[in-house]
Amino acid sequence: MRTNLLSLSLLLIPTALFAAPKNIIYMIGDGMGPTYLTGYRYYSDDVTTKAVENTVFDQLWLGMASSYPDDDTYVTDSAAGATALATGIKSYNGAISVDHKHMPLSTMMMQAKKLGKANGIVASSQINHATPAAFLAHNKSRQNYNEIADMYVDYRINGKPVADVMLGGGKKYFIREDRNLVNELQQQDYQYAENWQQLDQLTRSPAIALLADVALPSAIDNPVQQPLAQLTSKALQLLATAEKGFVLMVEGSQIDWCGHSNDIACAMAEMDDFGHAIQVAKDFVDANPDTLLIITADHETGGLSLGANGVYEWRTDKIKKIRHSALVIAEKMLAATNDENALQIWQTLTSMALSEEESKLLLMAKTDSNKALTSQIKAIINNRTNTGWTTGGHSAADVPVLAYGKWQKDFIGFQDNTDIAKKIMQYIQQTK
Amino acid sequence: MRTNLLSLSLLLIPTALFAAPKNIIYMIGDGMGPTYLTGYRYYSDDVTTKAVENTVFDQLWLGMASSYPDDDTYVTDSAAGATALATGIKSYNGAISVDHKHMPLSTMMMQAKKLGKANGIVASSQINHATPAAFLAHNKSRQNYNEIADMYVDYRINGKPVADVMLGGGKKYFIREDRNLVNELQQQDYQYAENWQQLDQLTRSPAIALLADVALPSAIDNPVQQPLAQLTSKALQLLATAEKGFVLMVEGSQIDWCGHSNDIACAMAEMDDFGHAIQVAKDFVDANPDTLLIITADHETGGLSLGANGVYEWRTDKIKKIRHSALVIAEKMLAATNDENALQIWQTLTSMALSEEESKLLLMAKTDSNKALTSQIKAIINNRTNTGWTTGGHSAADVPVLAYGKWQKDFIGFQDNTDIAKKIMQYIQQTK
Repeated sequence: MRTNLLSLSLLLIPTALFAAPKNIIYMIGDGMGPTYLTGYRYYSDDVTTKAVENTVFDQLWLGMASSYPDDDTYVTDSAAGATALATGIKSYNGAISVDHKHMPLSTMMMQAKKLGKANGIVASSQINHATPAAFLAHNKSRQNYNEIADMYVDYRINGKPVADVMLGGGKKYFIREDRNLVNELQQQDYQYAENWQQLDQLTRSPAIALLADVALPSAIDNPVQQPLAQLTSKALQLLATAEKGFVLMVEGSQIDWCGHSNDIACAMAEMDDFGHAIQVAKDFVDANPDTLLIITADHETGGLSLGANGVYEWRTDKIKKIRHSALVIAEKMLAATNDENALQIWQTLTSMALSEEESKLLLMAKTDSNKALTSQIKAIINNRTNTGWTTGGHSAADVPVLAYGKWQKDFIGFQDNTDIAKKIMQYIQQTK
Repeated sequence: MRTNLLSLSLLLIPTALFAAPKNIIYMIGDGMGPTYLTGYRYYSDDVTTKAVENTVFDQLWLGMASSYPDDDTYVTDSAAGATALATGIKSYNGAISVDHKHMPLSTMMMQAKKLGKANGIVASSQINHATPAAFLAHNKSRQNYNEIADMYVDYRINGKPVADVMLGGGKKYFIREDRNLVNELQQQDYQYAENWQQLDQLTRSPAIALLADVALPSAIDNPVQQPLAQLTSKALQLLATAEKGFVLMVEGSQIDWCGHSNDIACAMAEMDDFGHAIQVAKDFVDANPDTLLIITADHETGGLSLGANGVYEWRTDKIKKIRHSALVIAEKMLAATNDENALQIWQTLTSMALSEEESKLLLMAKTDSNKALTSQIKAIINNRTNTGWTTGGHSAADVPVLAYGKWQKDFIGFQDNTDIAKKIMQYIQQTK
């Protein structure tokens, strides 16, 4: 910690007195600025009680981190953010664990594997998306999805592929005309699951699950309950027996996507899934106290505010009743047989009675395009719930830092995102 | 703390083993959501170095607090926020330390005074504005400025007025046709200062300084350098000799007002003044280690985001060069002899070269009204710097919690705003 505290160093028993954690669970809520935690608390509030209940996030919240990339913009993308969080070194926006000269930066997953630890990644995006990629690969651009997927097979540490457990989406990048990376991994003893039924049948590491062509469905649209929590549970089961322990990275990938889309119901559903995944990890720490759990974000997305346009009220009651992402609501309305039917679908999926003006705006947008209708749906929802957004991109807000386990106090207070990675890499370095 | 931490309680020496702090300095940045701290860090960044330097805020940042009022809106106003921070009990928006039935809620300043401690308040607003008022008075409405000012004189604790030191603005509420409260206080041995020269001549408590009719000028427009830091220094000088110690509340009142106005240069100048006031308080703790410093906010204002409209860049270089609030820039442009002169004034005060379109928009707004021109000025500045705002009011964002001194670890992690007050009131209760 770079804080200049009067007495903290005297008052805390230094973690150096403990053996380093055997297992590390590192969870990244992509785009999860602090307002997402606040919003999820109020979204989860039991309104029949006077106090607002603490969430699992609140219980573990210990600090904040800056997220600026290695230039003077102060606003990072997910690639530079993940590079900082995976290597302890900042780079440029778009970089997958390479520096400005495109030279590789060693990641904590590579370090762990070299030292004989098991490792794994879980994501609700494709597993070769920016965040997991920065832990497992080097590339000058996050856009080179195939090259990144290839590296998951070709990059060798102690004669083996870089990761032991990889669970998420991305089939189309791994099973291609030019190359079938799944086959190649199966020939190297990897178990493979291509759907949720087969996921249950994964029994040991190494293993890979690709449960969607690209990303998993958005949590709010996914018939599978708490998909990220389920994947986290499976990854922990596969890694728990590793003799020298493990490092697992779990990304709540789509919090960011809901933020980009400025879709608040979508964002809260992702937070709910991520929160359940955190609970799974926290329970693992309780059962295995030689484990450290760290949770943070790479950046904030959307410039989200709870309350907007001068109104002092954020309407979670309305948000809770929304049953799909704006994108899916639009699709369903467009598939309606007529306008009346379309408005009925709106009513069923949002429980929000429309004014005459709002109905007109929706039907007008419906004749225009899917995109126009999606935008109009979000405009009404954001307006009715007093949810504010300033951007379809990222902002420079500091991000929350949460930790659980004997070493958690190392993450108290304000720090840089690279400090988090450096501390974790110091622990890994002590592997015996 | 309501966190459910595995081991923190075991690992920290309980503060119960220390005597309670003799002195408490409690600083409230009105409207200072976490993004204001982040923004101030980047605004202060020395761009000739690669890393971003930590600010005094970052050095002391230990936790976060929820700010919801006692209803289901989740968005508080400054009165309910200050009531929670001054009494440990939530109330309705507008309440000055009274409950829903308008019954008085005892404040920490009253408690301290009853126990023989000295106390004081510093504000850059009128001293009877919502935040200081909730520490020194009870009223069903923050709007009752005269009644609140009266109570500063009429409410008796141990036969004396409620506060020993009161520094800020508000002359018009204290020197009225119907009543001259300053005279009344002077008759009770209060020293009085009505300008900055006289402030220097205050030598002992009790004392009152009213340096403006209503609020002090906005820091960015104030020829006095670091006014809040100067007032804080004076208050500490006057209170330092109190035998049983003191409780001082310092409000950075106008961070909020710049937020309401969506004026980023104004907000950063207020943060700079508040930061210097924190440095004064921190130095006092270093010299007087029986002092605890706590810093927080009552709520976030403006839904501020650093980066907006899809651009991944927050332009502090441009913000740093702005020399006045938008309001004052507009006044000066309106006083110009002609359009060309008005545009020269813009250039001098902002160092921002205008496009032809922007010049037209400004000159058009100038013919309309002061308000229209002020809005147009802010629109250009926010657009050029990629600063986002979602509201002219407050949002429900959690606020930062900073602390310094031996007891600081009691403020680590996530807590409710009432928890902060309760902890402080527990300390005060131990006064000997």
